[in-house]
Amino acid sequence: MNNATLRHDTAMVHVDWQDGTSSDFPYIWLRDNDPAAFHPQTKERTGDLTSLSLDVLATKIETDGKVLTIWWSGDDTISTFDCDWLRSRSPGQRAADPAHTGFTYWRQELGAAGVPRVGSDDVLNSDTALKNWLVSTQTFGFSIVEDLANNTQAGMDVARRIGFLRETNFGRTFEVQSKPNPNNLAYTSVALPLHTDLTNQELPPGFQFLHCMANEAEGGGSLFCDGYAIAEDLRLSDPEAFGLLSTISIPFRFHDENTDIRSRKNVINLDEDGQVIEICFNAHIADVLDLEPTLMVRFYRAYRQFMIMTRDPAYLVTLKLKAGEMVVFDNRRVLHGREAFDPQTGFRHLHGCYVDRGEFESRLRVLQR
Amino acid sequence: MNNATLRHDTAMVHVDWQDGTSSDFPYIWLRDNDPAAFHPQTKERTGDLTSLSLDVLATKIETDGKVLTIWWSGDDTISTFDCDWLRSRSPGQRAADPAHTGFTYWRQELGAAGVPRVGSDDVLNSDTALKNWLVSTQTFGFSIVEDLANNTQAGMDVARRIGFLRETNFGRTFEVQSKPNPNNLAYTSVALPLHTDLTNQELPPGFQFLHCMANEAEGGGSLFCDGYAIAEDLRLSDPEAFGLLSTISIPFRFHDENTDIRSRKNVINLDEDGQVIEICFNAHIADVLDLEPTLMVRFYRAYRQFMIMTRDPAYLVTLKLKAGEMVVFDNRRVLHGREAFDPQTGFRHLHGCYVDRGEFESRLRVLQR
Repeated sequence: MNNATLRHDTAMVHVDWQDGTSSDFPYIWLRDNDPAAFHPQTKERTGDLTSLSLDVLATKIETDGKVLTIWWSGDDTISTFDCDWLRSRSPGQRAADPAHTGFTYWRQELGAAGVPRVGSDDVLNSDTALKNWLVSTQTFGFSIVEDLANNTQAGMDVARRIGFLRETNFGRTFEVQSKPNPNNLAYTSVALPLHTDLTNQELPPGFQFLHCMANEAEGGGSLFCDGYAIAEDLRLSDPEAFGLLSTISIPFRFHDENTDIRSRKNVINLDEDGQVIEICFNAHIADVLDLEPTLMVRFYRAYRQFMIMTRDPAYLVTLKLKAGEMVVFDNRRVLHGREAFDPQTGFRHLHGCYVDRGEFESRLRVLQR
Repeated sequence: MNNATLRHDTAMVHVDWQDGTSSDFPYIWLRDNDPAAFHPQTKERTGDLTSLSLDVLATKIETDGKVLTIWWSGDDTISTFDCDWLRSRSPGQRAADPAHTGFTYWRQELGAAGVPRVGSDDVLNSDTALKNWLVSTQTFGFSIVEDLANNTQAGMDVARRIGFLRETNFGRTFEVQSKPNPNNLAYTSVALPLHTDLTNQELPPGFQFLHCMANEAEGGGSLFCDGYAIAEDLRLSDPEAFGLLSTISIPFRFHDENTDIRSRKNVINLDEDGQVIEICFNAHIADVLDLEPTLMVRFYRAYRQFMIMTRDPAYLVTLKLKAGEMVVFDNRRVLHGREAFDPQTGFRHLHGCYVDRGEFESRLRVLQR
């Protein structure tokens, strides 16, 4: 970087780096990001943008290839920047995020044998095993942790290696078993078509943990599909349906004696670059659709098409969880469901909890330092 | 409604209600919302849309003004709907939400004396007082609870009347006081310009509770402004700035030894109708802006203009909290800050926690049943 060259005009510094790339740094950005404008302990920004003029100008700029130094007009401030840092923060370029380790979309071909597996002891005792498990869980959107101790604490201990548990109206943990007076279909023995949980919440829970304590009843297999794979296939095969599902929000609602929680969501959610980043699909708690009548008819076609794809064996992976296994999945990507079971033939009990994406990604960033 | 009249074509039923209004109900919507398609206990939808044809047709439709009955072609299904329910759910019309009780935007003129106040015992013991307090807290975006017991449990007891506490990387509760080795500027004695908390989280916390345990130091007054009022004034006075702040997302980040939590946010967030529904403004944890250089210069102008407005006395209400008072505010609407204080002159200690909007709105809906 010794040969970096500089030009500047009334608004920006233009740098031609040695490798032929270049960056434009607006003066106001440079002043706002002066390293002296951050608190030494908390690393938070303490500089005051309102005290800076938008027309701030440099009187002199120099670089030795390692450090860029700017003398500012109007006051005695001199700013020094590390050139590697400047380059990594070139305006118009997103900073690298170590939490984004990539996705592998999957379909039926993955099979139960293709689901990543890790031992509970490894995750509990090794930061490297923890990191590798988080990466593979994010890559496929799900994984299985094996050899958990036979108590409801064991699954939570694994989840807490990532971060604190996300509390919801169902508590900080929940028991998936057939109950009298259920307030949720999960607490019955009926089949559950594939869905994502709690789409009625402003922020549906991120990663879900289901520790199988017992699964002796006939039936009760667990079903999974990759919502991102389905959305991408729909984008190609039926662009109108994809467009409607990714732009029109619909109401979701859960209510019981003590709660009435509502939110609107798109079924398919995209980031600013059009990448699929979230699926919200839960027919059980979809509230009455409230779209304009003609849009409603078009939306129903799109919505039903997506629903048909979630039932298509081409996308399904089926597992029969065994006691001591815990399935972990990104509830905002991977849809889950279960086959009906007969509670007369044996006990079925899953102990569940959630950890949000924010905690998951934070842990991944810290482990990669 | 005795004179409601019906017409139907190949896709919809058209109803002219007695008062001159009308509704169009697509057949597929009627089949999907057949009252028989919901679980009697959980109230969740159990009907299967994929088993319905998009071309479903009625063979006969009748109404006596109270009930609408439809005989479907292709199978023996007969659906009966309550006419009042149908009308309240007319496609294209949003269902009424009892949690939406309206906002009053405020500026300096409100004054400290204008902030709604309620007694702690009333909120703890009366559901009516609780409901009225929630409505006034939502209307103004903040309120003060008085006469709390002198222990850190007292504020949480009030908060838990609404719902469970929102946990964050700072814990389920936090102590705002000057600390050695702070990881957050709140834990120092410096002035805090107005901001909203935790904009680096995918879902910033909703309502914030700050129970004043002691405030004997010189300085340390609490500052508030109504972010919705500022945004609406900006929309009129500087539409370009409003447009940029409501469409361009910027990165936020908090990191310390154990965490690295990042998210992108618009400073001003709008719902589908263009209504302001959230302010995310926190210069301390705004990460290095990464916009294209020319957009960056325009954005800085808009962002700085908003920041100047948050410092303008025309929008400020200043309070000096007393021990036993708790300020409660919508952290995604009302910006808060504090004057610097001198920790040598006396102790200042606030005990804080959050309850999210989802729990707040749910409680308001349940209390209004």
